[in-house]
Amino acid sequence: MTVNIICVGKIKENYFIKATAEFEKRLSRFCNFNVICLDDKSIPDNPSVAECNAVLQKEGEQIMRKIGKGDIVVAMCIEGKMLSSEELAEKIADFQMRSSTIDFIIGGSLGLSDEVKKRADLRLSMSAMTFPHRIARLMLEEQIYRAFKINANETYHK
Amino acid sequence: MTVNIICVGKIKENYFIKATAEFEKRLSRFCNFNVICLDDKSIPDNPSVAECNAVLQKEGEQIMRKIGKGDIVVAMCIEGKMLSSEELAEKIADFQMRSSTIDFIIGGSLGLSDEVKKRADLRLSMSAMTFPHRIARLMLEEQIYRAFKINANETYHK
Repeated sequence: MTVNIICVGKIKENYFIKATAEFEKRLSRFCNFNVICLDDKSIPDNPSVAECNAVLQKEGEQIMRKIGKGDIVVAMCIEGKMLSSEELAEKIADFQMRSSTIDFIIGGSLGLSDEVKKRADLRLSMSAMTFPHRIARLMLEEQIYRAFKINANETYHK
Repeated sequence: MTVNIICVGKIKENYFIKATAEFEKRLSRFCNFNVICLDDKSIPDNPSVAECNAVLQKEGEQIMRKIGKGDIVVAMCIEGKMLSSEELAEKIADFQMRSSTIDFIIGGSLGLSDEVKKRADLRLSMSAMTFPHRIARLMLEEQIYRAFKINANETYHK
């Protein structure tokens, strides 16, 4: 089983790099886990709708090139479905029966293009609140790890 | 304006200590910000309902002693109300008119006692998913910081 996080933007702070590295190490026990970071396109100050759409489209095209044909795609979006940790674990178990690869997509600060959202098998929202990219990635990695622990009937050691 | 996070359990990992320290520093620009960490009571293996309730009650009593009489209390619970970042910012602006102190309460791994929940002016849920204490605290600090930025009409620099 391969699990990829495809995300726009890199984490810069050393302590966030270490925090995510810890979960990535733990996840590697359960799956072939990869994080694919794409460059975020620079957004002009006070961008027009057209400028926003252009950035979204370019980032979207980069993302689409990283998604394999038979991959299951989970797009992280604030308007997506809210699941409990247990429900996400169930979804992941179901996805594992249908494909060898799951791609979780975290967009840039403008979100995800329609093309990416349309490709998604699941649009998932972790919160009604907006979180910065680095915290969203940490939250997602922890939830994927928690899902594997739940599905393996293992106690979660915090 | 004083904002306290009253939480059960300490953060141990150095990278999480640094990540929360960064938001605590940023928050100190907007308010007198404090984190009050209480000892978590040890939970026996396979605890009975009575043992869980005993832990919850003890932790609850410790929390109640830290809450001032006129404080506004926000209890973090998974069954609480979900607000967007903008809605939380509005709530905080409203609370500032009513009291000089807001206490955000994060419980231990068993959650919060009924006594604490009853004392709360707002029960707030950041997610339908369960997060470990250290990530929940980071998420909450980031959202309080974001709320102050929204209320000050400042751009959020990620």
